[in-house]
Amino acid sequence: MLVLSSPSGAGKTTISRALLDQEPNMTLSISATTRPRRPGEVDGRDYHFVPHEEFDRLVKESQMLEHALVFGHRYGTPRQPVEAALSEGQDVMFDIDWQGTQQVADQVPNDLVRIFILPPSTQELERRLYARAQDTEEVVRARMAKAADEMSHWAEYDYVIVNHDLNDSLAQVQAILTAERLKRERQIGLRDFVESLRGAQ
Amino acid sequence: MLVLSSPSGAGKTTISRALLDQEPNMTLSISATTRPRRPGEVDGRDYHFVPHEEFDRLVKESQMLEHALVFGHRYGTPRQPVEAALSEGQDVMFDIDWQGTQQVADQVPNDLVRIFILPPSTQELERRLYARAQDTEEVVRARMAKAADEMSHWAEYDYVIVNHDLNDSLAQVQAILTAERLKRERQIGLRDFVESLRGAQ
Repeated sequence: MLVLSSPSGAGKTTISRALLDQEPNMTLSISATTRPRRPGEVDGRDYHFVPHEEFDRLVKESQMLEHALVFGHRYGTPRQPVEAALSEGQDVMFDIDWQGTQQVADQVPNDLVRIFILPPSTQELERRLYARAQDTEEVVRARMAKAADEMSHWAEYDYVIVNHDLNDSLAQVQAILTAERLKRERQIGLRDFVESLRGAQ
Repeated sequence: MLVLSSPSGAGKTTISRALLDQEPNMTLSISATTRPRRPGEVDGRDYHFVPHEEFDRLVKESQMLEHALVFGHRYGTPRQPVEAALSEGQDVMFDIDWQGTQQVADQVPNDLVRIFILPPSTQELERRLYARAQDTEEVVRARMAKAADEMSHWAEYDYVIVNHDLNDSLAQVQAILTAERLKRERQIGLRDFVESLRGAQ
């Protein structure tokens, strides 16, 4: 289970899309939300759009790995699709913030790899937030404040990538994946393999 | 500090040489030994050849990160060159066995990355030990037993690589290096960097 978090504007979305393209063994966890579907959004691709009662039921039955209330709408990560993908041998990527990461880490402390992506500079962060927004100065300033808040949680992550260059950052995420898969405790069946090597002596 | 251990015949020497070629930031730790220099060996390249009294002094003054007695000769890792390389910003690679690894881990538990390399199969291990040795059946069998003993310690390592293919294994070691360098706690100065990103908001 791979968590990518970052402040808005650090390049996380681009990195995670490129990663999904290049890693056939990687599935993106789709969040559930109670907010209405926007034009262009597809149910099950962008979000699982669910009614409030359904969301409540999932939370009550511990079927949410994490959930939060944002501007009056609920967002969460349903547990079932994650467990289904994992049991098929897929890795699962989560595009969630520090609050979601804390909740997921609480539930599956040993099977989680947390990467935090930082922008290379304040100038670049500002540039990206402006570029994205056809918004007022005030809205952009609110986004910058939110980014500063998100970044304050960098120390809760296992790895930190400063996104100077998309290709470099993508390669770094892939190196982390490769390394994590080589960790002794993640290699199922290694004990039997070594015993077969040793036993045949 | 990177430890590569493996049974003889698993391909470790080839991997470590290729790694040193490709990683300019990586220095090989040269062991000290009391055994006599053999023809072709170069002092300071293959080993630091030291007299018994000098070896004793280094051990007594805690100047050895690890040491062992093998067939009447002493072998050890002098601490000073390792610390000098680290303080110059180099990574240091150790080609030591499980006993040495335990001793080094005891002294620097937080700054050590331990990789164990396994042969792909018993057949391949036998083939390599035979290919290397113009030796009797008995000598080869003794080597196989030593390999089995070394392999029994695989679970004391952070990462395990099964060496099916040299290039794949080399890439895996490099991915581990990349990932370890991206670990939050290894990135010195990150706190200041994040504060500068946040503070300028």
